[in-house]
Amino acid sequence: MKRVDVALIVLKFGGTSVGSIERIRNVARMAMAEQQAGNQVVVAVSAMSGETNRLVGLVEDLTQFYNKREYDVVVSAGEQISIGLLATAIESMGQKAKSYLGWQVRFITDGSHSKARIKEVEAFRIQADLDAGAIVIVAGFQGVDSHNNITTLGRGGSDTSAVALAAALKADRCDIYTDVDGVYTTDPRIVTKARKMDRISYDEMLELASLGAKVLQTRSVELAKKYSVPVRVLSSLEPGSGTMLTKEEDTMESVVVSGLAYDKNEAKITILGVPDKPGVAANLLGRLGDANINIDMIVQNVSPAGDATDMTFTVPKADFPQAMKVMEDAVKDVGARQLQGNSDIAKISAVGVGMRSHSGIAQKMFKALADEGINILMISTSEIKISVVIEEKYTELAVRALHDAFELEKDPSDRINA
Amino acid sequence: MKRVDVALIVLKFGGTSVGSIERIRNVARMAMAEQQAGNQVVVAVSAMSGETNRLVGLVEDLTQFYNKREYDVVVSAGEQISIGLLATAIESMGQKAKSYLGWQVRFITDGSHSKARIKEVEAFRIQADLDAGAIVIVAGFQGVDSHNNITTLGRGGSDTSAVALAAALKADRCDIYTDVDGVYTTDPRIVTKARKMDRISYDEMLELASLGAKVLQTRSVELAKKYSVPVRVLSSLEPGSGTMLTKEEDTMESVVVSGLAYDKNEAKITILGVPDKPGVAANLLGRLGDANINIDMIVQNVSPAGDATDMTFTVPKADFPQAMKVMEDAVKDVGARQLQGNSDIAKISAVGVGMRSHSGIAQKMFKALADEGINILMISTSEIKISVVIEEKYTELAVRALHDAFELEKDPSDRINA
Repeated sequence: MKRVDVALIVLKFGGTSVGSIERIRNVARMAMAEQQAGNQVVVAVSAMSGETNRLVGLVEDLTQFYNKREYDVVVSAGEQISIGLLATAIESMGQKAKSYLGWQVRFITDGSHSKARIKEVEAFRIQADLDAGAIVIVAGFQGVDSHNNITTLGRGGSDTSAVALAAALKADRCDIYTDVDGVYTTDPRIVTKARKMDRISYDEMLELASLGAKVLQTRSVELAKKYSVPVRVLSSLEPGSGTMLTKEEDTMESVVVSGLAYDKNEAKITILGVPDKPGVAANLLGRLGDANINIDMIVQNVSPAGDATDMTFTVPKADFPQAMKVMEDAVKDVGARQLQGNSDIAKISAVGVGMRSHSGIAQKMFKALADEGINILMISTSEIKISVVIEEKYTELAVRALHDAFELEKDPSDRINA
Repeated sequence: MKRVDVALIVLKFGGTSVGSIERIRNVARMAMAEQQAGNQVVVAVSAMSGETNRLVGLVEDLTQFYNKREYDVVVSAGEQISIGLLATAIESMGQKAKSYLGWQVRFITDGSHSKARIKEVEAFRIQADLDAGAIVIVAGFQGVDSHNNITTLGRGGSDTSAVALAAALKADRCDIYTDVDGVYTTDPRIVTKARKMDRISYDEMLELASLGAKVLQTRSVELAKKYSVPVRVLSSLEPGSGTMLTKEEDTMESVVVSGLAYDKNEAKITILGVPDKPGVAANLLGRLGDANINIDMIVQNVSPAGDATDMTFTVPKADFPQAMKVMEDAVKDVGARQLQGNSDIAKISAVGVGMRSHSGIAQKMFKALADEGINILMISTSEIKISVVIEEKYTELAVRALHDAFELEKDPSDRINA
């Protein structure tokens, strides 16, 4: 139940923020300050930085083919340590605190060990502690399935834990503290004049997150959108108001292009001369699905001669050798003409909810790239994004050129839109 | 329910036995060998050696006055790591294994964080896995209270976990693997000809355990006695049949003196001229209880003059300074004459169920010490033990003299009993 008299705030801190005793004390102070400002405070934390890697290393020293149930048992110990330490730190400073593991809250997940999905969060136990004046510390990244087996949510899962908790508690705000001070128009390491956005819509963030901007885990943004959780991304190291994720209706205006993302972790596979018969495409892609390889972009041209077509798709770079092997057999089986692969590619994406109502964005994008002599290998569009695949070596050049072309360094109201 | 067709065995391994990846593999092989011999196998394990100290260190780096609930959350992560790794090791060798945390089994304890006592063990979940052919790995040292808070049993608590589990499962045997190959007539580091015992009764072991022979945690022996669990103590490093703990009825004969224990961790406090009035002793000892100081031996002489008496008791050496402080005030308040303290003492105890039916043991003990010129400062006896307090510097000399006097190096049937 939402309280009208007092705000409830969920804070989330990653491994770097709790990476040492001194940093844990710092997080304790930040949580206490939020409470002293009159709020009820829940803190979701990751394992101390390095700890998860240490635990994964122990498992992998035993075997590369580990049982995932037992992997989850070992790895989830990391957050157990950090929540107990943070609660201890707060208690030692004279404030009430109580820690909860995933199974104590409880975070009910499906049974997919090492990449489980949250089905339900039971938050009533926490609410009772909050009402009694305690700061509640919750282990991120972990839950239990319906048989009480420990599960983990996959790397970066603590963001999702925090947002799920905020949704279940109907929190007034969910502050995700990271090592950056907000969401930028693009990677500031590439474009020095990249601008921090004050607000961004869930949909835009979703495209940026899934397209390689590593600020928030994609699933956490999906969840925030679904339950309209007011999420704020901000730095635990320097002060600032960060970036607020909001519903589209709540943004001041529909920005044509909000930000640019890039992703160097894909590879491209092209099959030439695919017989243009029903079921052939499904056959080809189905073989990749059977091999547990995800496909991202898919483009297929209309058949030039009427009886065969060319198909291109992208897969994660790590799966590229296996995908090529699977496709070699497939090409023979379906009678396609030729197989080509290229792992030296990058995907550049422009994202913005305003694209819906503005024409000319694609042209502006293609022209900016052409002016720099960058060839476009593949194009894919959705309602609020345009992605192009280019040669990997042009990544930084392309991002800078597009940042200039869309005037992303300027405040949105000062831009000359296409 | 006990199976008649197949034996159920609980194995317990301490931190040293699972202290590295290679040692975890070794424990995995031992558990699998027991299963291949036709048994159902449950393994209780401690945290990897050094891990508990590391976790306690993190808590103590934050504060010396930690919240014990949160201490238990942090420290219990140690066994979580070791059970997951052991199950992973067994699975990687092709055998089914499944790990259980304290709350999953469940070990229900009282709410005394950091020194909880087991109230109940629910073992039916484990039995189902055993019947399905899995080796079950259980975290020692930990449980949950009735509110689902994590608790720990105190240092050495894994022995107690193993025995409680064996009792709940009505196991045919509980093998406690340690770094010694059994229970000896006394410390082999002091008496080189000390003899390993094949069998010892629960009561004798209880006296030896609580008197400073550090093989088994006292509570685990109490539990084994209460539920008649056949416990065997043996080495995880070298082969051997170890020492079997049995009911007294099951021992071949009632040995007069089974073993000798010594304890250098106590200090002695004497109060001279205590007014011989009802309630005065209770007043003095009650003040120590209020200060959470345990008292071990207490002796009080009859009042020589009829109006005052002398009282001597022992306390843990670590509590000696505080106990003296408490007693300084007490002595004034009750009008006693003088306070004396001595922390350079040792307690030597001879234990044997045969004492009940044999006279002369005390005389033989006192004579052997007198022959070496060792003065006895305090004497205390129970049904199956005699303890004497002597100056600490004579400890080794006294233990050797008594080992000779009682002929403990010989097989019990070859001894000339007193």
